[in-house]
Amino acid sequence: MTRPTLAHIAEMAGVSVSTVSKVLNGRDDVSRDTRAKVDSALRQHHYVRRGTAAPDATAVRTVDLVMSGLDGSWPASVASGLEAAAYEAGVHVAISVARSSASATNHRAQDWVDRVLERGSAGVVLGLIEPTPDQLGRLAQARVPCVVIDPLSDPPPDVMSVGTTNWAGAYEATQHLLQRGHQRIALVTGPPEHLYSRARIAGYRSAMAAAGLEVAPESVRHGTYDRASGAEQVRALLERRPRPTALFICSDHMAIGGYEAIAGAGLRVPEDISVVGFDDLPEARWVAPALTTVRQPLKEMGGSALRTLVRLMNGEELESPRVELATTLVVRDSVAPRG
Amino acid sequence: MTRPTLAHIAEMAGVSVSTVSKVLNGRDDVSRDTRAKVDSALRQHHYVRRGTAAPDATAVRTVDLVMSGLDGSWPASVASGLEAAAYEAGVHVAISVARSSASATNHRAQDWVDRVLERGSAGVVLGLIEPTPDQLGRLAQARVPCVVIDPLSDPPPDVMSVGTTNWAGAYEATQHLLQRGHQRIALVTGPPEHLYSRARIAGYRSAMAAAGLEVAPESVRHGTYDRASGAEQVRALLERRPRPTALFICSDHMAIGGYEAIAGAGLRVPEDISVVGFDDLPEARWVAPALTTVRQPLKEMGGSALRTLVRLMNGEELESPRVELATTLVVRDSVAPRG
Repeated sequence: MTRPTLAHIAEMAGVSVSTVSKVLNGRDDVSRDTRAKVDSALRQHHYVRRGTAAPDATAVRTVDLVMSGLDGSWPASVASGLEAAAYEAGVHVAISVARSSASATNHRAQDWVDRVLERGSAGVVLGLIEPTPDQLGRLAQARVPCVVIDPLSDPPPDVMSVGTTNWAGAYEATQHLLQRGHQRIALVTGPPEHLYSRARIAGYRSAMAAAGLEVAPESVRHGTYDRASGAEQVRALLERRPRPTALFICSDHMAIGGYEAIAGAGLRVPEDISVVGFDDLPEARWVAPALTTVRQPLKEMGGSALRTLVRLMNGEELESPRVELATTLVVRDSVAPRG
Repeated sequence: MTRPTLAHIAEMAGVSVSTVSKVLNGRDDVSRDTRAKVDSALRQHHYVRRGTAAPDATAVRTVDLVMSGLDGSWPASVASGLEAAAYEAGVHVAISVARSSASATNHRAQDWVDRVLERGSAGVVLGLIEPTPDQLGRLAQARVPCVVIDPLSDPPPDVMSVGTTNWAGAYEATQHLLQRGHQRIALVTGPPEHLYSRARIAGYRSAMAAAGLEVAPESVRHGTYDRASGAEQVRALLERRPRPTALFICSDHMAIGGYEAIAGAGLRVPEDISVVGFDDLPEARWVAPALTTVRQPLKEMGGSALRTLVRLMNGEELESPRVELATTLVVRDSVAPRG
């Protein structure tokens, strides 16, 4: 069982892979004969080609949602919002996980871009994936528009993104702790190279500065967004003297890990230490005490990304390459006032 | 913005919808001229056709995962397992939610079968959806094979299904409570018409009977798999005298609702009442006390459904129309011994 990779087509037509790619991308530096051979091979393989730049309003259009993984609440919420918007827009949704070739257990290892192009996708939404300049270039060359949800780093100016107001969310969370009387507020956030980590640190710092408080460098720690790293970073923070009275932990999963570290140190949330999370995944409601957290509108972000993508597919001009949807602070039971 | 429904194609070719359908299905009671007109209209609309009965091993093949919803841990786990298996098998995955036409907010209301056929899907996996005989008939006519995950009712003998060992899982959960000394064990399960509810009730009854215990009719209650209904059914059970000492609640979400009802009655889990759930969603680990539950291998069910579907797409004979993957009891902190 094989699929028509560009390599197959090239072999069949007796040309190089880059020649096939040129034909697919409508380049004109290919001889007429060569083009005919490639076209014939493509037809024989039922290769679904991208149309021209003008959108074909009548064809079945499928867009790709490519994410770093499908497990868990984050992808489920994004996919759910995106699928509902796609249904409204009359486009179909293909999903896949972005894998590195190295992780494949068979010989058919393919880049997600290969698969998107192979399928003749009308557009791509990326979730928690950092597209390389090469990948973006190949999409652009094939005229497949792309929208990035929650970009890990600043995308090029011509790549659209939908995110959330990370700075404002972090500012509001920190201010909530300040208003409850906390001053020794430490921060656990994600890897420093991530765009949204930087925005959240900045929001926290701004709120602290507005309250006239200094932030010691040791009060800011970086985890990797998972439960274990949350526990590890919080353990380190609990060893500081004087101990922080409140923690702003920039992911619900890390905050749940933080709960474990706090319990492990014989302390209680919120009596001994207050905690605010970030995301508002369903888990935030299940834990005890229920977690006060900054809600990211994940469904709405999925829906907004899809609608932006459809506008690009239709050749519309967009006002702004960046959309940030508002966060909201969800107050539950993990913050106590500090007298 | 419209899409090429069969009606569009029919109008363009000047024939009836059923004629288009005949051409698409390779029927030979269509004249050569009519066929040519339909073929031309299909080509102009870039209509992606199903191949012949013999699978076309070289084309890009997309399968559909259609579920009752995409939100939450159940769909995420199933989709994750299915997508990984699809990647290995070299097929693409389209996802959608099965909507009733009535729920659509625009005029493009479509049955999921319409969309599957429109896309030229090579096969369909259904999750928590009850296909109607009409829907199954249309898929069969278009030669689109179908696999049902966790069927709500007994599917027709020619429809493949992948489920879990509901009877054995319920038997094991009940036995676990019996071995810890419980005798007054009540059951909360799903709607009585669901196949897996019936299997779980039967497993519970068998374990009780094997221990020589009678089951009062009032000890078996039916919820709707959500948190609120779990709380409601447990409240009713807590009013019984003598009160049950243990509850087997056949969904983690209902069990979490049960926790709330138990706390609301001033009782503690597991000191006053023991609880066993069913599913092993991530939520079961977040709640306090962590929930002892019956694990459904959801990822494996997604993977198995995909592999079964690919075998059907390849025209292979299957040994059995039913596959049940084993459950496992995951012991955590919600069961206490009863002296």
